[in-house]
Amino acid sequence: MDATYDAWAGPTVGELGELVVLDRIVRRLPAGAPLLGPGDDCAVVAAPDGRFVVTTDMMVHGPDFRWAWSAPEDVGWKAAATNLSDVAAMGAVPTGLVIALAAPQDTPVAVLEAFADGVRLAVDALAPGCGVIGGDLSTSSAFTVSVTAFGDLEGRAPVVRSGARPGDVLAVSGELGPAARGLTRLFREGVDAGGEPSRDAVVASGADTDPDVGRQRRPVPPIADGPRAASAGATAMLDLSDGLAIDAGRLARASGVTLALDEASDSGHVIDEVALHGGEDHGLLAAFPPGVPLPGGFRRIGVVLDRGDADLVRGGVPVPTTGWDPYADWDGAAG
Amino acid sequence: MDATYDAWAGPTVGELGELVVLDRIVRRLPAGAPLLGPGDDCAVVAAPDGRFVVTTDMMVHGPDFRWAWSAPEDVGWKAAATNLSDVAAMGAVPTGLVIALAAPQDTPVAVLEAFADGVRLAVDALAPGCGVIGGDLSTSSAFTVSVTAFGDLEGRAPVVRSGARPGDVLAVSGELGPAARGLTRLFREGVDAGGEPSRDAVVASGADTDPDVGRQRRPVPPIADGPRAASAGATAMLDLSDGLAIDAGRLARASGVTLALDEASDSGHVIDEVALHGGEDHGLLAAFPPGVPLPGGFRRIGVVLDRGDADLVRGGVPVPTTGWDPYADWDGAAG
Repeated sequence: MDATYDAWAGPTVGELGELVVLDRIVRRLPAGAPLLGPGDDCAVVAAPDGRFVVTTDMMVHGPDFRWAWSAPEDVGWKAAATNLSDVAAMGAVPTGLVIALAAPQDTPVAVLEAFADGVRLAVDALAPGCGVIGGDLSTSSAFTVSVTAFGDLEGRAPVVRSGARPGDVLAVSGELGPAARGLTRLFREGVDAGGEPSRDAVVASGADTDPDVGRQRRPVPPIADGPRAASAGATAMLDLSDGLAIDAGRLARASGVTLALDEASDSGHVIDEVALHGGEDHGLLAAFPPGVPLPGGFRRIGVVLDRGDADLVRGGVPVPTTGWDPYADWDGAAG
Repeated sequence: MDATYDAWAGPTVGELGELVVLDRIVRRLPAGAPLLGPGDDCAVVAAPDGRFVVTTDMMVHGPDFRWAWSAPEDVGWKAAATNLSDVAAMGAVPTGLVIALAAPQDTPVAVLEAFADGVRLAVDALAPGCGVIGGDLSTSSAFTVSVTAFGDLEGRAPVVRSGARPGDVLAVSGELGPAARGLTRLFREGVDAGGEPSRDAVVASGADTDPDVGRQRRPVPPIADGPRAASAGATAMLDLSDGLAIDAGRLARASGVTLALDEASDSGHVIDEVALHGGEDHGLLAAFPPGVPLPGGFRRIGVVLDRGDADLVRGGVPVPTTGWDPYADWDGAAG
């Protein structure tokens, strides 16, 4: 670990012990407004709708992030943002997060504090009013964060992946491409002579201040557009975590349809190769009935067709809809 | 790893890939009855009460369990049981679990299948009708399980730690001691000549069939007694995860009272040293107004007094209420 992050100094979690560490983290997290917050066996959360949506996602040092490329604040931001995006993709409004975190005993407490700052910054920016209403602190040889997020549907039906119908308009909200461009630059320039992730190389190459690298570290999902899409009558929706092509494939198979991307000239929104195959921007992909004014930041990128031979086509040509598998593809490195 | 567990053989998660592994796990998990189950960005769960309770707990190979001492089924059972117990301790009925799991790539898929079997067995035995309604599958150098559990209060107020009043009766439900006795035996007899956890030593010593070791591996929390206590008017309650003394200390400080354990002759329930200081049985500790018939498996162990100098006393003598800190106490070993 390069010493260029201020957070990587000071007393460790093993030196201070769980209670002190917990106290120092909790005060930095967004509190939200649960009916009952941390301190009991459970938190109590309002579910005015009589239902709640829930999603969970685990991030592990190595396969999911590298300390040489992401500061602890970035990891906190991303852990919150990706889960908030899954809530939004159902058309729900985020109502709370719980976070389980396991850190090696030699981790400086400042790293956990910076992580908590990142969570707070993301929640304040993306889902103000939401908060961290519970959690668990453990120890592990691998820094691991598991976030579970909740949301309220406000009386609306959940927007699932399987509802797209032929004739619907296909639309996206949020950015397409920057996170993947940032990751590509980190893999190319953020490594040392041996190919290992290096904070020094990130700084020396200028990648550290590249806005695309910034988006890789801190994606900005259009959370408010999830409920907007549901209110506008979206027939299907999902979070773009693995790239437009892979996620469009999921929506197409679940709905039993084929999705056809516009040629660039149709709508003016150019879906380039990075947008098509690069993930981690956490935009929203949705289908809307024809004629519905697209809400918020949504823009048309195509149309829903009767099921053909392919999940996704452009100009009549099938677009591959497969990709990243953490079990098959992770090389075991951390850095 | 000794080869004495059948699960530790066959194709690995890295060889089969995420989708195949997921399919093989999900079919073994209890489905429960969510409004919308796995397959979308979120599950949707009913919250008929207009609120829900939520708790999360992470278990990591090394600090939290050893493969030499616990089979994968045991780990699945315990991960479910401990979280269900936290739900019960609020007076709520469990309504669902989400599970995030990260396994090393060389983990046999059979291990994950056996883990799923353990979750199912625990849910079927302890909270029938509950189910696993979502999850996430990742990879890590350390086998890690993060469970988040939900419950419904059925219109009752949540039973918190801070409500005990002087004059209340102090009572417990569930077992006190076997899990700690089992752990003591594993530390003493379940190790090789170098002191390392050893499956062969567990078998050779006879510890493998010791009922106390069985309870260490698969605690049997009295889940149904949580809602029963709430209905009976319990003023305070918590899950006995860290031993009666430590957890009584938490209840006493939260409520601003002192708890006085009966002398053995008062109630006939002998609280021995193992019951007092041994954890992981996940019984329930609760305070009830005087005169209330104790529900379910609850039996009196003491009384609530005005706050004095100590959290917990017996025969007028203070009982220490401190203990295990995972950051300070884990020695870094796995096994």
